[in-house]
Amino acid sequence: MADPATIRTDAQRHHDPQIRGFASDNYAGAHPEILAAIALANGGHQIAYGEDDYTENLQQIVKGHFGPTAEAFPVFNGTGANVVSLQAMTDRWGAVICAESAHINVDEGGAPERVGGLKLLTVPTPDGKLTPELIDRQAYGWDDEHRAMPQVVSITQNTELGTVYTPDEIRAICEHSHERGMKVHLDGARIANAAASLGVPVRTFTSEVGVDVLSFGGTKNGALFGEAVVVLNPDAVRAMKHLRKLSMQLASKMRFVSVQLEALLAGDLWLRNARHANAMAQRLAEGVRAVDGVEILYPVQANAVFARLPHDVSERLQKRFRFYFWDETAGDVRWMCSFDTTEDDVDAFVLALKEEIAK
Amino acid sequence: MADPATIRTDAQRHHDPQIRGFASDNYAGAHPEILAAIALANGGHQIAYGEDDYTENLQQIVKGHFGPTAEAFPVFNGTGANVVSLQAMTDRWGAVICAESAHINVDEGGAPERVGGLKLLTVPTPDGKLTPELIDRQAYGWDDEHRAMPQVVSITQNTELGTVYTPDEIRAICEHSHERGMKVHLDGARIANAAASLGVPVRTFTSEVGVDVLSFGGTKNGALFGEAVVVLNPDAVRAMKHLRKLSMQLASKMRFVSVQLEALLAGDLWLRNARHANAMAQRLAEGVRAVDGVEILYPVQANAVFARLPHDVSERLQKRFRFYFWDETAGDVRWMCSFDTTEDDVDAFVLALKEEIAK
Amino acid sequence: MADPATIRTDAQRHHDPQIRGFASDNYAGAHPEILAAIALANGGHQIAYGEDDYTENLQQIVKGHFGPTAEAFPVFNGTGANVVSLQAMTDRWGAVICAESAHINVDEGGAPERVGGLKLLTVPTPDGKLTPELIDRQAYGWDDEHRAMPQVVSITQNTELGTVYTPDEIRAICEHSHERGMKVHLDGARIANAAASLGVPVRTFTSEVGVDVLSFGGTKNGALFGEAVVVLNPDAVRAMKHLRKLSMQLASKMRFVSVQLEALLAGDLWLRNARHANAMAQRLAEGVRAVDGVEILYPVQANAVFARLPHDVSERLQKRFRFYFWDETAGDVRWMCSFDTTEDDVDAFVLALKEEIAK
Amino acid sequence: MADPATIRTDAQRHHDPQIRGFASDNYAGAHPEILAAIALANGGHQIAYGEDDYTENLQQIVKGHFGPTAEAFPVFNGTGANVVSLQAMTDRWGAVICAESAHINVDEGGAPERVGGLKLLTVPTPDGKLTPELIDRQAYGWDDEHRAMPQVVSITQNTELGTVYTPDEIRAICEHSHERGMKVHLDGARIANAAASLGVPVRTFTSEVGVDVLSFGGTKNGALFGEAVVVLNPDAVRAMKHLRKLSMQLASKMRFVSVQLEALLAGDLWLRNARHANAMAQRLAEGVRAVDGVEILYPVQANAVFARLPHDVSERLQKRFRFYFWDETAGDVRWMCSFDTTEDDVDAFVLALKEEIAK
Repeated sequence: MADPATIRTDAQRHHDPQIRGFASDNYAGAHPEILAAIALANGGHQIAYGEDDYTENLQQIVKGHFGPTAEAFPVFNGTGANVVSLQAMTDRWGAVICAESAHINVDEGGAPERVGGLKLLTVPTPDGKLTPELIDRQAYGWDDEHRAMPQVVSITQNTELGTVYTPDEIRAICEHSHERGMKVHLDGARIANAAASLGVPVRTFTSEVGVDVLSFGGTKNGALFGEAVVVLNPDAVRAMKHLRKLSMQLASKMRFVSVQLEALLAGDLWLRNARHANAMAQRLAEGVRAVDGVEILYPVQANAVFARLPHDVSERLQKRFRFYFWDETAGDVRWMCSFDTTEDDVDAFVLALKEEIAK
Repeated sequence: MADPATIRTDAQRHHDPQIRGFASDNYAGAHPEILAAIALANGGHQIAYGEDDYTENLQQIVKGHFGPTAEAFPVFNGTGANVVSLQAMTDRWGAVICAESAHINVDEGGAPERVGGLKLLTVPTPDGKLTPELIDRQAYGWDDEHRAMPQVVSITQNTELGTVYTPDEIRAICEHSHERGMKVHLDGARIANAAASLGVPVRTFTSEVGVDVLSFGGTKNGALFGEAVVVLNPDAVRAMKHLRKLSMQLASKMRFVSVQLEALLAGDLWLRNARHANAMAQRLAEGVRAVDGVEILYPVQANAVFARLPHDVSERLQKRFRFYFWDETAGDVRWMCSFDTTEDDVDAFVLALKEEIAK
Repeated sequence: MADPATIRTDAQRHHDPQIRGFASDNYAGAHPEILAAIALANGGHQIAYGEDDYTENLQQIVKGHFGPTAEAFPVFNGTGANVVSLQAMTDRWGAVICAESAHINVDEGGAPERVGGLKLLTVPTPDGKLTPELIDRQAYGWDDEHRAMPQVVSITQNTELGTVYTPDEIRAICEHSHERGMKVHLDGARIANAAASLGVPVRTFTSEVGVDVLSFGGTKNGALFGEAVVVLNPDAVRAMKHLRKLSMQLASKMRFVSVQLEALLAGDLWLRNARHANAMAQRLAEGVRAVDGVEILYPVQANAVFARLPHDVSERLQKRFRFYFWDETAGDVRWMCSFDTTEDDVDAFVLALKEEIAK
Repeated sequence: MADPATIRTDAQRHHDPQIRGFASDNYAGAHPEILAAIALANGGHQIAYGEDDYTENLQQIVKGHFGPTAEAFPVFNGTGANVVSLQAMTDRWGAVICAESAHINVDEGGAPERVGGLKLLTVPTPDGKLTPELIDRQAYGWDDEHRAMPQVVSITQNTELGTVYTPDEIRAICEHSHERGMKVHLDGARIANAAASLGVPVRTFTSEVGVDVLSFGGTKNGALFGEAVVVLNPDAVRAMKHLRKLSMQLASKMRFVSVQLEALLAGDLWLRNARHANAMAQRLAEGVRAVDGVEILYPVQANAVFARLPHDVSERLQKRFRFYFWDETAGDVRWMCSFDTTEDDVDAFVLALKEEIAK
């Protein structure tokens, strides 16, 4: 195959590839190994819609990570992975218990309700993490037709607030949920960061502790695009293929999703990328902790740092580096690190923060 | 940037890139220029969810093709493009008139009904093409609350049967529909093949004759993945961005969808790919016409050949080349050509057909 | 209880109770025995939402008609009965095969699609009746995720065209459908008219020949309002109570729906009403057959007469009696008889028709 | 018309009309004037689906109460009224802000999400009442496609906790919402009790202070069944008739819904019923306040009394009178009074409470 760098294309570069910020891990591009993998999978014909050799091979890789019952269903994006999962785990009359801060509740444009007809039964949490006690605030009324029936508990690992459940915490949630006839879904848009943080294989806090289905995130882990619904407990879902299709998440040239997941998961690219992003967040947190006037809000356990600082400082700093307010009224911001964040990026950011706070 | 071919990846090649068939244009991989374009767009940080420089630049390219009011909304796949379009063009109480053979009716797993709540009002056609007369079989009862309200006419160009509307035919449909207060959507999963067939710019049979919104197909034209809803008449849609998001078709790293569309549309890659696929279908049709016992079913105007031949011949032939039955009872088959189909592929196929029919 | 006729009410009579037409059996009011039954059930408190004594008692009556496994779920209206039934019989990915002329397809405002997310797979029929052969036009592709999965066949008895399936015809449909893993729903908005026409108990063409679930029509049979989903095969449905509730068809004061069904079904009011309406349609058909220039279109087997006559005659006649065009272009009209249609009504109508046709 | 009491019916009385409890105002039957009104509207033919003389007449009555722009759309039940209203007030991408305790959130089986695809953005409240400040916790992000767009604020009058908004409180909510481009819906399942409590016409706290659409409750006010969506601001809704139909809330014999609303609203039956129920709740509250060990939880402003008392006392009391736990863990109960609750009922209940608490 010809070197893509030498192939003429009518497309042009429109951006400066040296500029990075702390806005989101999906502001990053794709890891070079991902592009190499796509090039490998290119050429010739492969059956469309998932019957290709790459998707078949992916199953063995996924079983290696999650155990022999695991099956992967590649999809396009995280909202798709979550909403396909939740539809497959619920009936028409089902509802999903989740944290008020869950991505499915606050960041998916109402897709669970609109596409899945799902009611979300939400619970406020101090740190983005559910517990059996918090679940119980919504876990009742299964026989009451006046209430959407709680059938699934959905947790996010790591959470939207950058915190990480321990395996025991997830085990307790799964046991509690299963005892009440509910299944457990794990939104793993950043599951690699959680594994890196815990220093354990992904199975340790998923299949081994009772999680039924998870959304595996590739995009934020360095892929071009692409996630997978990973079914750990086959009895927990129905008609995955039909639901993926009718939810408009079935890629025709699926080999190109699957080979990206292979590039991440066949070796340790997933872990290298996650460890690096986490390490950069630790470096950032350490740098920031030394700065007066900045408060770190949650334990920094993955690749996110949430902080509170004067609003005007944030505004000035945003002119130098991209990042978002999390709660503008409170002055809370979120700084995300990615697989391509460098030590220099972090150090320059901390320096800039110090300069702005000193003004 | 390093040559991807030299980058180590844990992914492996699992297929033979020399094997091609006639099953579908989405069995092909991506054109090398597409991969080169993706590599160009990689590196550094770009705003996610469509505010990147590539998506912005794409707008100018699309305006160049379709006119100054055109706006592109990149999405993941064809079903997504269609269902987002149709939702944006209808109210909760709306319905869509289409050919019985339309992809939205027979190949999208019920996504229009399930995701969009849309009723499709279908009409049988001889060749996949609607006409004002055929539309009128379903175009009535706008004030009748007992009937889902016809708000959109959706046509496919080229059609699922490989036929191509002339610009005048589309103009007549648009005028007829607009007079009755209905908008026109064009499913352009293979719009490039139609343009190549007609030998006119895409605007000649879309924006210039009254089409309001179209789904522009990149995947079957040589992209890795990626389509775009192209809004030609801004008054025909509402809240495109919200509908794309809640329909789970919003790519976070959208630059990689947009740059593929740029690679196709900035120059003539779209047209080169389509012309080639069409030419291969012509070559195939010519080769087959000479064979006794094979009947070509529809005019071969794009990259598809539909034929009727003895069932056992097809079955033996399928062991040598992949392709699909279209109507197994009738013995009808579909042979699709792609941007990467070679003259040798066609000639070998025709030869094989002759051998099998002679047995 | 006081005589309602002697009770002062601020409501007034706004219509002439002597005027009747042939537009629809739901233009009629309620049979006096229905009002008497409602008065009986009034007073005191009864548990809401279906746990009342009338709904409980109804179960025995329904079992008497349909067999020991039958269970009734009272709902508000026919669309509600159909859409609740079909949701309970299908999965999220299911589709329903029905005649193109089926009420669920043409007269329910898209409720099956909008509320149930259901795709209807329709088949044209000569007389509103499906057959195994007609069903097979849509009965395929269960494993194909690109196609909404056919899970239910829905027939209407009597049909929207006034024709009546024989028990053997329904048995053949049920056997054919069950062999293919599909369930059978019967839209019985006018099931009483069908039973009266066939001269058999309702079980003879429902539970005894394999129908799984039916919508039992009370409104057109003389009730104020109210229908019931009658589940004949409990294995064919799931979560009926939850689906009725979330479909907004759960009456709080359900005793008043149930007692109307009791008034119809505990004795023979249902049959008296249906026989009378059917007899009036026969009288009408006989009167009309003698008139030159009027063609009766379908066998008159229930309470409907479909006829073709000159358009201007219909228009003049409509100024004297209410009725509807069925196909205005063709000059087809529909004349419906009701439980309260009198012989004089029919005779006057036939006379008027003769007068108008003579002009 | 014959006296229904003298008409033979095959239905039988299955309950004791002397037994009443405090479980719900929809455990009561219908007021005798309602049955008299239905008898008046019976007989003869009337156009189905809402073009009857009773529905037409109802419009004038509703305008008399709510002002000249008001229009009523009769429906079957409260969930139907709410979900039709909210669909008519929102786009596909819309969301509804409401109290966490709102009926639409906790008692409608997920119908808003399932039927309407609506996301509810909920806010905890101390007493079931929203305020501008509470609304602001969810009123943001209109341009953010990642968030379902807040388009409607829905309040309940009186609230599910028996509290009543003052006209000024509703005015403040309407002004606040309108300033932010949101419309206001009022769930008036017990609007009559609110008007009776405030001692003002219903317009004083609806049309005159900016409410756009309301659900008018007939069932809990003494009707057999039947509610109406009352559109106060025609610009706030679209396609009401289509949405009512596709939401399966269109009664064919609508005259019988409309005449019940006429019976309530043409004179003062609505107010007599509500005042009586409220008075009984006051009598109950006064009786209970004197009892040690019972705490009344919210201001008793309508026909509900919420109380906290020892769990075992409630359980013993429930064997004598029907009522529900509201929060079983906390020992909270709800006692509802109805139009047919008598002073003797209340006094007997208070006596029984005293007896049980003394045990």
